[in-house]
Amino acid sequence: MTANNRQVLLASRPRDQVSEDNFRIVETPIAQPGDGEVLVRNEWLSLDPYMRGRMNDVKSYVPPVQLGAVMVGQTVGEVVQSRDAAFRPGDKVLTSLGWQLYGVAKARDLARIDATRAPASTYLGPLGMPGITAWFGLHEIGQPKPGDTVVVSAASGAVGSVVGQLAKISGCRAVGIAGGSAKCRYVVEDLGFDACVDYKAGSLEHDLSESCPDGIDVNFENVGGELLDTVLRLMNPHSRVVLCGLIAEYCATEPYRYKSLRAILVKRIKMQGMIVFDWKDRYGEALQQLVALFAAGKLKYRESIVEGIDNAPRGLIGLLKGENFGKQLVRLA
Amino acid sequence: MTANNRQVLLASRPRDQVSEDNFRIVETPIAQPGDGEVLVRNEWLSLDPYMRGRMNDVKSYVPPVQLGAVMVGQTVGEVVQSRDAAFRPGDKVLTSLGWQLYGVAKARDLARIDATRAPASTYLGPLGMPGITAWFGLHEIGQPKPGDTVVVSAASGAVGSVVGQLAKISGCRAVGIAGGSAKCRYVVEDLGFDACVDYKAGSLEHDLSESCPDGIDVNFENVGGELLDTVLRLMNPHSRVVLCGLIAEYCATEPYRYKSLRAILVKRIKMQGMIVFDWKDRYGEALQQLVALFAAGKLKYRESIVEGIDNAPRGLIGLLKGENFGKQLVRLA
Repeated sequence: MTANNRQVLLASRPRDQVSEDNFRIVETPIAQPGDGEVLVRNEWLSLDPYMRGRMNDVKSYVPPVQLGAVMVGQTVGEVVQSRDAAFRPGDKVLTSLGWQLYGVAKARDLARIDATRAPASTYLGPLGMPGITAWFGLHEIGQPKPGDTVVVSAASGAVGSVVGQLAKISGCRAVGIAGGSAKCRYVVEDLGFDACVDYKAGSLEHDLSESCPDGIDVNFENVGGELLDTVLRLMNPHSRVVLCGLIAEYCATEPYRYKSLRAILVKRIKMQGMIVFDWKDRYGEALQQLVALFAAGKLKYRESIVEGIDNAPRGLIGLLKGENFGKQLVRLA
Repeated sequence: MTANNRQVLLASRPRDQVSEDNFRIVETPIAQPGDGEVLVRNEWLSLDPYMRGRMNDVKSYVPPVQLGAVMVGQTVGEVVQSRDAAFRPGDKVLTSLGWQLYGVAKARDLARIDATRAPASTYLGPLGMPGITAWFGLHEIGQPKPGDTVVVSAASGAVGSVVGQLAKISGCRAVGIAGGSAKCRYVVEDLGFDACVDYKAGSLEHDLSESCPDGIDVNFENVGGELLDTVLRLMNPHSRVVLCGLIAEYCATEPYRYKSLRAILVKRIKMQGMIVFDWKDRYGEALQQLVALFAAGKLKYRESIVEGIDNAPRGLIGLLKGENFGKQLVRLA
């Protein structure tokens, strides 16, 4: 156990692209837990696209990260010291302690994880927020029926990879959109999608239309911009768009300007935005199903790992550019 | 009874704005009904924004009007001659005979109306397609709860005027958007909306935000373009957009480019397109309620009447420019 904690703070707000200058790394003493609190040593930090939004000084569905504060994020870690009856040293836990090596959390803000059942890091991926997001977004908003064609962007990513596998389990045709032939190959060959379109190939509308001969019934949107605008034109009457992420817009100074909204009227499309927090009372329900699928070998995943907290900023910058391949993590211990 | 029928045909397809050159008026013999058919003398022709879409050579939810064919539209008229047991001369009927003085329809394509209960023309307005559109769109997609703020564009129009009155009946705050102070005054003073914003005043976002101090829970969209883009920014979490019409786009050569889609994600808005035909098996249910409200004096309306079939093209052109004030009709007899 090192004597000090190490934290990544938000030092300045990016105008468009994030740079390493926007962060500051500091050493601080390790805090001591009070009554009902627990000291956790973080082992894995999750990097996610939503973090870009939290760096802006704009009230979104949650407040922004304050300048000088520790960057937000979920981690999995091990209890080092506990002043609450519910946890003991050695327990593996899921936390919201953010970008730091150690942190003190209230016991009620921690969830115990079973690292014997699945690797601890998967509780930040297919068995964590990304998997739960895929579960509720696809089932509650997308409402896929057997035989439907489900399209998902960022298909090799933490959310997209689960969406496509769940769509296959629901008896659908799963078509991914990803950047580059390596990711597309992985999506089809390893994850079992029926097809995957490389948006970098420059003929998205044509390629997508070839991969979706019966049109699109459900679009699970993680990217937005040109991708969403194109998908809308290929959607079927009474189809559904799960608007989960708009990563293409997060670093832009100007919002993308969509021209295909008329399709929503003419095709009577339902488009609905989602934030996984809206189902927080039902996480257990999704998790139980995801764990069962995982145990049965039906939920494949891939991780993109950055080593050490000092590299977390670079990990996020890469993620926002689509340089990750699978769930982006930082190994902290 | 004149010896001849008079019809308005689609002569050419408009590129953007409709002009009178796009139509041709012809005299033809009056057709004779065969078995199971009825000859109707049309009294009122309904003009509606959807007609603009039908003038394009684009497969939408229904095929376009063919060049040289009679322009489509609903009418109310009187049965002149019947070769079906279900109708007798003198019966008032709702038809889809389009822009002509006389027409032969299959009996099963006609609906009898009760012109003693409400003026015949109201079956093209508050008790017709526009009223039924308002009913299902607001209730099934908008799902307003008491206390919600409901915004509707084209608020003095055939659909919008009913939406706002139904919203008031549901215990909501009804806020209209209309063009010009006369329409806005009518919407508040005669229709009983809580407020109406004049989009021509040039400060839409500010004015709308003042009229909706608690944000917007339901937006019933008839216009689109800048109006919809502005409304999206003022919507509340978990609010609903009923996408019923995009009249602002119908005559544009280029689609409007929306920049506020991110609001749909962040606020978890549900936006859904609608065409009233999707509820065709349930029209009776809506009509029954609308007739009861009408009889109770709770459904006020206003008509904008063009005289004579030769003026129908001019009526449609005016409607597409927002020059009508209330339900646009053509008096044919």
